[in-house]
Amino acid sequence: MALTTCWVSHEGSLASLRVTVPESSGPPAPRTNKTAHPPLGRIQREEYPSSWDMAGKKVLIVYAHQEPRSLNGSLKDVAVAELSQQGCTVTVSDLYAMNFEPRATGKDITGTLSNPGFFNYGVETHKAYEKRSLSSDIIEEQKKLQEADLVIFQFPLYWFSVPAVLKGWMDRVLCQGFAFDFPGSYDDGFLKGKLAILSLTTGGTASMFSKTGVNGDFRYFLWPLQHGTLHFCGFKVLAPQISFGPEMASEEERKRMVASWAQRLKTIWEEEPIPCSPPWYFGQ
Amino acid sequence: MALTTCWVSHEGSLASLRVTVPESSGPPAPRTNKTAHPPLGRIQREEYPSSWDMAGKKVLIVYAHQEPRSLNGSLKDVAVAELSQQGCTVTVSDLYAMNFEPRATGKDITGTLSNPGFFNYGVETHKAYEKRSLSSDIIEEQKKLQEADLVIFQFPLYWFSVPAVLKGWMDRVLCQGFAFDFPGSYDDGFLKGKLAILSLTTGGTASMFSKTGVNGDFRYFLWPLQHGTLHFCGFKVLAPQISFGPEMASEEERKRMVASWAQRLKTIWEEEPIPCSPPWYFGQ
Repeated sequence: MALTTCWVSHEGSLASLRVTVPESSGPPAPRTNKTAHPPLGRIQREEYPSSWDMAGKKVLIVYAHQEPRSLNGSLKDVAVAELSQQGCTVTVSDLYAMNFEPRATGKDITGTLSNPGFFNYGVETHKAYEKRSLSSDIIEEQKKLQEADLVIFQFPLYWFSVPAVLKGWMDRVLCQGFAFDFPGSYDDGFLKGKLAILSLTTGGTASMFSKTGVNGDFRYFLWPLQHGTLHFCGFKVLAPQISFGPEMASEEERKRMVASWAQRLKTIWEEEPIPCSPPWYFGQ
Repeated sequence: MALTTCWVSHEGSLASLRVTVPESSGPPAPRTNKTAHPPLGRIQREEYPSSWDMAGKKVLIVYAHQEPRSLNGSLKDVAVAELSQQGCTVTVSDLYAMNFEPRATGKDITGTLSNPGFFNYGVETHKAYEKRSLSSDIIEEQKKLQEADLVIFQFPLYWFSVPAVLKGWMDRVLCQGFAFDFPGSYDDGFLKGKLAILSLTTGGTASMFSKTGVNGDFRYFLWPLQHGTLHFCGFKVLAPQISFGPEMASEEERKRMVASWAQRLKTIWEEEPIPCSPPWYFGQ
């Protein structure tokens, strides 16, 4: 068993936030400084500047699960409870309950298209953003996002990524002009100053998502989401909260996963973001 | 300029299939055998067994673009033309035209749920697959997929991944029992014996998607799709066809991208799949 500072919850984990992650059952990989991952970057702030006070902070939870009583539902509920208790204003976008539209189509632009004869989604939504003629559901989400200091994405991992309903939220809400431009991406992305965190559940165990496991290191699948999407838009990304294999866990273990998340949220505003660049994901 | 065997089309590329990829304009990364990527695995078969004859082969193109006259539309059209000309049977799932449903919900199961009081999408669709009570749109796509020898996914890269409408196709069509089971994943996935290829367009240039470019190596974002999805279901994955930055390219360059794809398809049945494991994506 190896000790790590990654924020994971899984079968057999300690209630403590500094959890033990089982090594893969496969053959041990050669370990050198070159291939080792750097620390995950979750250094606790030594000072606590007033700008990080939690009271008055706004949090948006973008939530994608069909069943309110699922582990994802519980993780969302406990986040609402804990953050509200801190004095934060918490907004939830419950995508399935909203029947949120995932498809990127011409319906996202109200009024006339810039070029009706040749539909280019990126160009049309960029112009519609500037003319304030995006569809109302997109505008509504952009308002919530604009106000948020922290955005939590709560979802079950589908095919090493977000469920399509959440992918559609990203495709449609994070449009050019609003979330980024050229120039205006990565550290200059328009959502800079905001924090984002992925809180997800997996089907596989932690050892399956290790460097020598069948699914590869969990950091590999985080790249398109954390770097290609969130960092691209300027977010500072906090270390992910991964609840591994809840369907294979006992009820008590699932309760510990929820408690672990609630506990972490108590000091979430003190956390430093990860260094969101290739070495964090793939080693040196 | 570095010579590579990756199948890319981009601004300034040669018409030849062995194209030159510009090095990143950023500082050169230290190159060692440890960090170098292995060859992409596109070794031409020396022999040509009769089972690889193209006549009679079935191809499914899963296509996700809103505009028929887009580069994606042209790439799809030329694939239909070339493969049909070879004697293949080609089927196209035009997801936007079909208004394909991306959301994974209880509507995907006809009749009564196994556990109506606690909805678990994975469990319910697994059981519905076995009881033949999945919704008709899913069954229809599964039939197409079951018959296909080769599946081509044609799409523009949205946030380092597929557009939500195509993610929804993966989430809903590739259900447990049909595409995989436990055991029955990766090399034992139920779609083994089939070939898959991602043909995609990007907003960024090839140099932006290089190891030292702002977006990182293009192989990084392919991991969840090629390994976590296609390989997981048993597909053998052919090297991706990436048309880099068509919106920044001239009309002539875009024509070369289409011609390059058509040319590749002439010998697609002779190609060896990539070694779909971490070293292909992240180096050693």
